[in-house]
Amino acid sequence: MKIYFAGSIRGGRQDAALYEQIIQYLKSFGEVLTEHVGDPALTSAGDDGPNDQFIHDRDLKWLQSSDVIVAEVTAVSMGVGYEIGRAVEMGKPVLCLFREGPKHNLSAMIAGSKDVVLIHYSDIEELKKPLQGNLFSFKASK
Amino acid sequence: MKIYFAGSIRGGRQDAALYEQIIQYLKSFGEVLTEHVGDPALTSAGDDGPNDQFIHDRDLKWLQSSDVIVAEVTAVSMGVGYEIGRAVEMGKPVLCLFREGPKHNLSAMIAGSKDVVLIHYSDIEELKKPLQGNLFSFKASK
Repeated sequence: MKIYFAGSIRGGRQDAALYEQIIQYLKSFGEVLTEHVGDPALTSAGDDGPNDQFIHDRDLKWLQSSDVIVAEVTAVSMGVGYEIGRAVEMGKPVLCLFREGPKHNLSAMIAGSKDVVLIHYSDIEELKKPLQGNLFSFKASK
Repeated sequence: MKIYFAGSIRGGRQDAALYEQIIQYLKSFGEVLTEHVGDPALTSAGDDGPNDQFIHDRDLKWLQSSDVIVAEVTAVSMGVGYEIGRAVEMGKPVLCLFREGPKHNLSAMIAGSKDVVLIHYSDIEELKKPLQGNLFSFKASK
């Protein structure tokens, strides 16, 4: 199973350590194509490629080749929204992970979309069971 | 010409007055389906519908029926990213408007996409000419 993990880069790196934990857990289910998203050395400058077109085209190829998209949507990010939109329109299964919080305000375009599965959670331990359940059901439906 | 204007709602309303100016200008070229995005009474609570599914489904129908998408991408917004991603995947023309600034950091997924036209500008007056030029060329290519 090829997994595309999406998380905020230029939108802000406040959740980078959590992304890294999620990616490590996802690796027990398959190959995570975008492991760099959890790299603590990657800053909000977002210089994970020689230029923006290279980054976009590389990430899009990964998105197209993936079996499932897992997106952490708590940190507001234009790129994560774009990736979810393209994946939904491609007909790929999309799992969105959201942490409730006083300053967290999820877009109606994600919260109201029937084409994504939305998981509410508070920490990595609470996330594992629903994440595993959904990944298994995607795998079974292939 | 049906125009879908996309701007940040729950991501933050700091640019709402500018959205309103852009929408007024766009109305000289056609029908703007999402005029509420520039409404100063609409806050970042984003309560422009009875619930999130209603908002998503209404906006998606507008997106599908539009001839062109004009997205202001300076304020970081998950919903705007999602709308651009879906529109690109639908093969619709997408115009993205970005104001340079010390705290503005455009996603590589927008800045690096060959499937969107990116206009850099500083204020509404500077925006009018390139906006008009691109709208006319989209209209001519239909």
